[in-house]
Amino acid sequence: MTTINILQQPTSTAWLDQAIANLDIILLDHSHCERKAAAAALNLMFRYPSSRALVDKLTAIAQEELEHFTLVNQWLDRRGIPLAPLNAPPYGAALRALIRRQEPERMLDFLLISCLIEARSHERLGLIGEHCPDPELAKFYRSLMASEARHYGAYWVLADTYFDREQVARRLEELAIAESEILSTLHPEPRIHS
Amino acid sequence: MTTINILQQPTSTAWLDQAIANLDIILLDHSHCERKAAAAALNLMFRYPSSRALVDKLTAIAQEELEHFTLVNQWLDRRGIPLAPLNAPPYGAALRALIRRQEPERMLDFLLISCLIEARSHERLGLIGEHCPDPELAKFYRSLMASEARHYGAYWVLADTYFDREQVARRLEELAIAESEILSTLHPEPRIHS
Repeated sequence: MTTINILQQPTSTAWLDQAIANLDIILLDHSHCERKAAAAALNLMFRYPSSRALVDKLTAIAQEELEHFTLVNQWLDRRGIPLAPLNAPPYGAALRALIRRQEPERMLDFLLISCLIEARSHERLGLIGEHCPDPELAKFYRSLMASEARHYGAYWVLADTYFDREQVARRLEELAIAESEILSTLHPEPRIHS
Repeated sequence: MTTINILQQPTSTAWLDQAIANLDIILLDHSHCERKAAAAALNLMFRYPSSRALVDKLTAIAQEELEHFTLVNQWLDRRGIPLAPLNAPPYGAALRALIRRQEPERMLDFLLISCLIEARSHERLGLIGEHCPDPELAKFYRSLMASEARHYGAYWVLADTYFDREQVARRLEELAIAESEILSTLHPEPRIHS
C-alpha cells in the first residue's frame, strides 16, 4: 500500500476529546458518512460515465462503502442507537464550494476533494480506533483502516491517471491547505468531520 | 420466491425484435440501467434515512446492482463496446412524473415505481435470455433472473411494510396500467425500456 501524506494539519486533540465523549453520535454520523461516500462515488460516475478506469474504481469504492455502512448500522443496533437524521457539519459544503466549474479542472477537483475527505476520515477513524474506551468498537475501527487508506489512494491514482502529476500535486496542496483551514475551528456538534 | 404478477401488459414482440437486432446498444443501455438502479436505491435511502427496513433492503439492492453493473461492463469489454453515454428513453421520466408530491403518498409511489421498473426489467432481460442468438450472452441474462425477481419483490415488500395492503394493491394497479401505456408505443431507439 502506498502511503500518501496529503493532510496539511493533523486533527486536533480537541476533536478527539469531543468524539470520544460522544461516541454514539459519532457512530450515527459515521453511518451517514458511509452512505454519503457511496453516493458521492456513484454521482461522480454519473458525471463521467465513459471514463472506464474511473467507473471501475468508483464502483469498487461504492461497494465497499455500502459494506461499511451495513457494518456501522450493526454497531448502531448493538448500542441501541436508532438511525436518525443528523445535521451535516459545514465541512463537505465548504470543500465542494472549492470545486472549479470548468472541465477538466472540475473533474480534477472532484477527485482531489474526495481524496482529502477519505484521507481525513482515515486519520480520524484511526484515532478512534486508538483511543476508543470500548475495546470491541476500537477493534472495529481499526479493521476499517486498510480499505479507508485504499480509498484515498484510489482517488489519488485516478487524478494521476487523467491529469499531469505536477498539476495534481499543486492543486492537491492548495486544497489540502483549505481543508485543514476548514477544520481549524472545531464545529460545536460532534461529527466525523467536525 | 414469491411470484408477483404486477405487469398489466406483456412486452411486445416488436420490442424483442428491436432488442435482438441491436444487442450491443442494449448491452450498453443495460450497463447504464444497472448504474441508475443502484443510484435510485441510494437516493431513496437519502429521502428516508431513518426507515431501517427500507435502508437495509435498499443497501442490499444497491450492492447487487453494482455487482451486475460490473458484470455487464465485462460483457461490454468482451464485445469491444466502449462505455459511452446514451440518451435515456422517455420511460423513467414518464414514470417519475406520476409520483405524488405529498408524503406519505410520495414514498409509496417511489417504492411502487421502482417495483414496476424492476419487474419490467426482469421480464425483458428474461426475454433476451430466451431469444438471444449468442448462447453465452443468453446464459448470462438468465443468470441475472433470480436477483432481478428478488428486487421487485423487495420493493413490493417494503411498500407492504409501510402501507396498508389494500392501498398498495390499488395504487400498484393504477401505476401498472400507466407503465404499460407508456411502453405501448415502441421508442425508436433500442433500449431496455424502449
